[in-house]
Amino acid sequence: MTGEVAARAALTRVLEPGDEHGGRWLRELGAVELMGRLTGGGTEPAALTGVGPERLAGYRRRAARADPGRDLAAAAEAQVRFVVPGTPDWPTQLDDLGDARPVGLWLRGAADLRAWALRSVALVGARACTPYGAHMAQSLAGGLAERGWVVVSGAAYGIDGAAHRGALASGGATVAVLACGVDVAYPRGHAGLLGRIAGQGLVLGELPPGSHPTPSRFVLRNRVIAALTRGTVVVEAAHRSGSLVTARRAQGLGRITMGVPGPATSALSAGVHELLRGEAFLVSDAAEVVELVGGMGELAPERRGPVLPRDLLRPATARVLEALPAGRPAQLDAVALASGIGVDEVIGRLYELHSLGFVERQGDGWQLSRQRPGGSTQTGGSRRGGR
Amino acid sequence: MTGEVAARAALTRVLEPGDEHGGRWLRELGAVELMGRLTGGGTEPAALTGVGPERLAGYRRRAARADPGRDLAAAAEAQVRFVVPGTPDWPTQLDDLGDARPVGLWLRGAADLRAWALRSVALVGARACTPYGAHMAQSLAGGLAERGWVVVSGAAYGIDGAAHRGALASGGATVAVLACGVDVAYPRGHAGLLGRIAGQGLVLGELPPGSHPTPSRFVLRNRVIAALTRGTVVVEAAHRSGSLVTARRAQGLGRITMGVPGPATSALSAGVHELLRGEAFLVSDAAEVVELVGGMGELAPERRGPVLPRDLLRPATARVLEALPAGRPAQLDAVALASGIGVDEVIGRLYELHSLGFVERQGDGWQLSRQRPGGSTQTGGSRRGGR
Repeated sequence: MTGEVAARAALTRVLEPGDEHGGRWLRELGAVELMGRLTGGGTEPAALTGVGPERLAGYRRRAARADPGRDLAAAAEAQVRFVVPGTPDWPTQLDDLGDARPVGLWLRGAADLRAWALRSVALVGARACTPYGAHMAQSLAGGLAERGWVVVSGAAYGIDGAAHRGALASGGATVAVLACGVDVAYPRGHAGLLGRIAGQGLVLGELPPGSHPTPSRFVLRNRVIAALTRGTVVVEAAHRSGSLVTARRAQGLGRITMGVPGPATSALSAGVHELLRGEAFLVSDAAEVVELVGGMGELAPERRGPVLPRDLLRPATARVLEALPAGRPAQLDAVALASGIGVDEVIGRLYELHSLGFVERQGDGWQLSRQRPGGSTQTGGSRRGGR
Repeated sequence: MTGEVAARAALTRVLEPGDEHGGRWLRELGAVELMGRLTGGGTEPAALTGVGPERLAGYRRRAARADPGRDLAAAAEAQVRFVVPGTPDWPTQLDDLGDARPVGLWLRGAADLRAWALRSVALVGARACTPYGAHMAQSLAGGLAERGWVVVSGAAYGIDGAAHRGALASGGATVAVLACGVDVAYPRGHAGLLGRIAGQGLVLGELPPGSHPTPSRFVLRNRVIAALTRGTVVVEAAHRSGSLVTARRAQGLGRITMGVPGPATSALSAGVHELLRGEAFLVSDAAEVVELVGGMGELAPERRGPVLPRDLLRPATARVLEALPAGRPAQLDAVALASGIGVDEVIGRLYELHSLGFVERQGDGWQLSRQRPGGSTQTGGSRRGGR
């Protein structure tokens, strides 16, 4: 077992999410060398400093049991991908986590995570939310989807579920970041929802297939949500809730933190109000969210035209782009028909093209961006062509 | 007509609230000289610069008709006082308004406005408020009253009325600042409420008896609410509402501006949320309001003991102070009985003593402050004595 990908797949069985000792070893030694030392003979592996002998023995036990070949084969069978840093699929935003960066990500779904993450917003909040909170999550998610933004959440009951559903219901893109293996339906009642997210969007996590969630894994999962997205909106949260941890983490990473206000009498808004007393921005609809997260110049490709030459697009993505008519928006099914690609995948490709600045959403449909490569402006048919 | 008070009483019939030309003339000439020039012979009055001849003619017409002797006599008959700058009753906070400072204030009610204003908070908001807004106004006002704070508002329907009622219901002090004469029941449906406020607190305004409100008078009334108080809380307000004007005015005067969040779906919270996106502080209960406005060191006499020697207290106030038992809180009716002063007036005196640092509220009752003149600390009976 010598490959970087296999070594990292094995390490997802050895290192718990966010293990900064492991992250440092990885940075200093590389994955292959680190696995080599952990699985090497009986002598104490050199350079693995910072942890006690007992903990090190635990790492070595887990490393000895890891079978990345089997894991990767089973994943491929189940159409689960494994994506590692430094490859074109890796969302480089996660590098901001430093030594707490995930070793790799297991992914269900066809979408281009790297492109999607460029235009993504996290919606998080209480499991036991109020009808008001669920309404706000669903309507914010729908509004973000309609504006071409990807909604990222944690697939939990309550706000998370409402956010994913709101995005799906608007024909939008959504990403569920799990605290367990991507093949594990947790919570059980969201098995169907997770299937729909994987079909139309992405389900991902750092933990290898079959892993179950633990309280600390939930907390550490939140750092991935925070780092992956350009901003985090807390919809409803009680004092001392996990969503506030995500929000503060996002803040610490330089992401934009937002909160949806609610009645001062609601315990489920108290945590959000606490955030709003600090650095978080108050938002009451999707337009306000987009105004905040979309204002970061270098990350707003639609303001500058595509960020990638057309001939570097992946073949299926290029086919979807070719299928869009000139000068008017097209509906999803028309694009699917013209490109010969299924509707679910077309959604993913369109969001990818959106992130890269080639297309924009217009009401129910999609159209070519006004800004074309080279800076020329498309005029006919664009609603905003007259400005 | 030569006295300062009479001249200022006359000027409340000549100058509209907030007239800065009039304010400048007053500052430059004094009230007596200004009235003399306005009522003088047919030649153009010297030094009354800044306004055109037509407007000046209007001033002179109104000055000629003014009869301050009659106004002051009628006011005295109706137990309405007229208070002017530079006298011991004048709330010096209003001097922050510069040339837009009121010429004088007409007052119904026995309380000491100057002392009350030291510990006052404005609660303002929409007329057509929601049940949530009314609940919040009432409960904030009750909580402020219980903490010994005076609730100032505008006596309008909706939030204003709920704020006054909340303070009254908690046996607290409240001040209504009107955009009309203090003898005019506006709005009509609040005639009874205004009577109760005058009985237990204060009803005041800049306009002479008999004056009716106009849209511009409402707007300018708001500057008095903003200046008089240490902070303004907006409970519910739509976009572009008058309450936001009061709040921004308060901000401009260096007062603390606060807002009560509400559902993002409520149009009547949209204006508050707009404020909260700016410099306003988010508050959800009275304790948070007090924490914000009470933190201004030099204005928090309870932290330093009384601010006035005991023998400078007015006789009735001193009697109320004498009536308080040592070492334990007393109920209002007991204080009234012991002092031989009516309950309504006792409330006013207690708030005055509270502002001056002599007493503090304890639950339903009142007790002598721990901090006594000279910095000695009262111990027995104080709930906080052990700290």
